[in-house]
Amino acid sequence: MVTEQYPSRLLERAVAEFAKLPGIGRRTALRLVLHLLKQKDEEVHAFANSITQLKDEVKYCRCCHNISDSELCDICSNPLRDSSTICVVENIRNVLSIENTGQFHGLYHVLGGVISPMDGTGPSDIELESLVERVDAGGVNEVILALNPTMEGDTTGFYIQRKLSHTNVRLTTLARGVSVGDELEYTDEVTLGRSIAARIELVPRK
Amino acid sequence: MVTEQYPSRLLERAVAEFAKLPGIGRRTALRLVLHLLKQKDEEVHAFANSITQLKDEVKYCRCCHNISDSELCDICSNPLRDSSTICVVENIRNVLSIENTGQFHGLYHVLGGVISPMDGTGPSDIELESLVERVDAGGVNEVILALNPTMEGDTTGFYIQRKLSHTNVRLTTLARGVSVGDELEYTDEVTLGRSIAARIELVPRK
Repeated sequence: MVTEQYPSRLLERAVAEFAKLPGIGRRTALRLVLHLLKQKDEEVHAFANSITQLKDEVKYCRCCHNISDSELCDICSNPLRDSSTICVVENIRNVLSIENTGQFHGLYHVLGGVISPMDGTGPSDIELESLVERVDAGGVNEVILALNPTMEGDTTGFYIQRKLSHTNVRLTTLARGVSVGDELEYTDEVTLGRSIAARIELVPRK
Repeated sequence: MVTEQYPSRLLERAVAEFAKLPGIGRRTALRLVLHLLKQKDEEVHAFANSITQLKDEVKYCRCCHNISDSELCDICSNPLRDSSTICVVENIRNVLSIENTGQFHGLYHVLGGVISPMDGTGPSDIELESLVERVDAGGVNEVILALNPTMEGDTTGFYIQRKLSHTNVRLTTLARGVSVGDELEYTDEVTLGRSIAARIELVPRK
């Protein structure tokens, strides 16, 4: 691809910075930068400030490592949440997804990644030791592994299982199966196979 | 749509700022913000600075009103360009598009918009007066109207035509027709109709 000649180095630089963002190509970057250029001075400054301030001032909860404005996040400090259940997730987005279901009332543990030898991420690079410490500290009955069903997610799950084998905590994982609303015809074989193997009793046997 | 509950107000604000950009929804905004949050401090600051610096320091060429780092842009100050031909465009992106074709060697005039009563943009809100002044100053043989084939583009074109009627400058517009590579079957009727009406002699008649 031939790089476009921009009429200004300042424009060139701003476009290059935007194009570094995931999923943003140079054409979209230019569109976004020219949009910002048309906005009022104070709006552009508010945009830039919101990012630097977030980066400079954001904290991570010392308990679950979720993003937070204070030392202890709103979920961990909420006395109405069930502190005996910990849901282990890869990242902050996963916390938001599960919170949006309204089905989980326990606490979280954000690993900040998964074990991935290909990417050079080992067990010590993510928040695994602190998870074991939380469980060892007592008061935890169940640890739910809510990791992605990928090679890396599974590896991380196995590792956590081994690391918690000395405790008598209940270890569970998300149910896998046909998505609600999905047609069987279009469900992939692995998922369909698993959902047959893990079939559910409709009428409990007497 | 239910707004997601973000675990941090700083995060919330940064996501809201990104979501103001055209074509960026809250989900994409969150992905971009979390991506930035994972970058190094200096990279995030470089990102934010590139935007504020662009906004604060960018200039517009006093002749053609294109974006520029100096008083007179690189195109207007280039002695190799043909200053007798002015190509009138709506915005900076159009300059880039035409420059990329490598087919135009004259100068530009960036209107900064088109006449649009619906959006409240009148002739005095765009760089029309300065175009007339440029032509009146002399040395211009041809004005090419390279405006979008929309109601607003056409209105602006007619207005310019009237405003330049006292001069003897040659007024031309972009050729409309079937796109190179397009199949006739899928070309819209208006375009096909125009390209028949404006058909080109293959062998010039003797």
